[in-house]
Amino acid sequence: MPPPRFFCETPLDAGRRIDLPDALAHHALRVLRLADGAAITLFDGRGGQYPATLRIEGRHARAELGAHESHEGELRGRLTLIQGLASGDKMDWIVEKAVELGAAELRPVAAERSVLRLSGSRLDRRLDHWRAIARAASEQCGRNRLMRIHPPAPLAACLETVQGPALFCHPEGVLDFRAALTGVRDSLTLMVGPEGGWAPEELALAQRQGLQGVRFGARVLRTETAGLAMAAAATALLDW
Amino acid sequence: MPPPRFFCETPLDAGRRIDLPDALAHHALRVLRLADGAAITLFDGRGGQYPATLRIEGRHARAELGAHESHEGELRGRLTLIQGLASGDKMDWIVEKAVELGAAELRPVAAERSVLRLSGSRLDRRLDHWRAIARAASEQCGRNRLMRIHPPAPLAACLETVQGPALFCHPEGVLDFRAALTGVRDSLTLMVGPEGGWAPEELALAQRQGLQGVRFGARVLRTETAGLAMAAAATALLDW
Repeated sequence: MPPPRFFCETPLDAGRRIDLPDALAHHALRVLRLADGAAITLFDGRGGQYPATLRIEGRHARAELGAHESHEGELRGRLTLIQGLASGDKMDWIVEKAVELGAAELRPVAAERSVLRLSGSRLDRRLDHWRAIARAASEQCGRNRLMRIHPPAPLAACLETVQGPALFCHPEGVLDFRAALTGVRDSLTLMVGPEGGWAPEELALAQRQGLQGVRFGARVLRTETAGLAMAAAATALLDW
Repeated sequence: MPPPRFFCETPLDAGRRIDLPDALAHHALRVLRLADGAAITLFDGRGGQYPATLRIEGRHARAELGAHESHEGELRGRLTLIQGLASGDKMDWIVEKAVELGAAELRPVAAERSVLRLSGSRLDRRLDHWRAIARAASEQCGRNRLMRIHPPAPLAACLETVQGPALFCHPEGVLDFRAALTGVRDSLTLMVGPEGGWAPEELALAQRQGLQGVRFGARVLRTETAGLAMAAAATALLDW
């Protein structure tokens, strides 16, 4: 078994001895029950990772960092998922899977048909929750950079951020998925509607921006399936 | 909105008038609150579908079937997922997504490291539960054939059923996913371990059968992500 991996929000440097943040220490000592001297791996999201030795001194948990290892688990290209806010725990699931499949950014869309509406402290808490899921997923899947999660915005605002090729996913789309990837080189944005799909105004908006509806296969995919299936398929087809 | 779709276990014939099975009638009348005369679509899993008109007569629900429509939502090739039994509600999720992505068969493996152990009436109930999920997913995603779900079996027994090319998915596999698909034509089996991965004996067993470990991308995928990601990627690469 490879040593357990932890994201550490304090910047790391080779050869240093650092105090572990409380949450990390709690996870290492109380949840995983690691002992003094245990081998761990730390990463701070700036790229690469550090093998380290856990040191427990009374109530304090420290780590002695080894040399920087340049290992990355990133895709060769930059994948962004623009995802209509889904309800229940589906967003949690989408966040986790998007990290595993290598997405660099997730932009939740407060879509016309999104049942979930977030604002104020509820929004802040939910963003914190999603970011914690993304950190844990990075620890688990071996990525040393964190997927960036933006606050939800209407589709128009999300569309303004798009640079490079983008696929507007729609079960009635006319463009075949493979054909739609023609010309994609080093960045791709996938846009997936919420449970109820995109509203007519959103489809019209995307069309005015020159985006054609793309479908994946002959079946209607649920919102939490579509982005992940297309992310896996696109990265395989593009050899990312 | 297209008419709601229902799987009907009694065989259907064009132009007939049939009594709807109780569970279907309950779903149509009580859950979806459809009214007399509503347009519905029925399929019986033998291929194609029937547009129909719902008829409510007192406590009885019937359907007047139209002509047979040959529409299918199947992949061009036959995809089988051999999946190490995962715990919690992960299997539910794997069943649903496997249907959406077009798998023809799901063979759960009672793997060495599967925490979930099923037998007797608990096994029967769980199989019924998974098959109900598969039916609902078919209704939702537009497939007119049902994914077959087998009772769990040890890996050795599952391996005996494999016909044609098979990928033994393993995070430390040496074979690249795209390369592993060379020569695949019209059938493919994906084998994914449970949460703890394949045990050494299972890896050795697969090796003796000539199967090489295949990995998908640079990240370690969770068991419930791996099959789905590889199914989506394989069907896209194979143009199924």
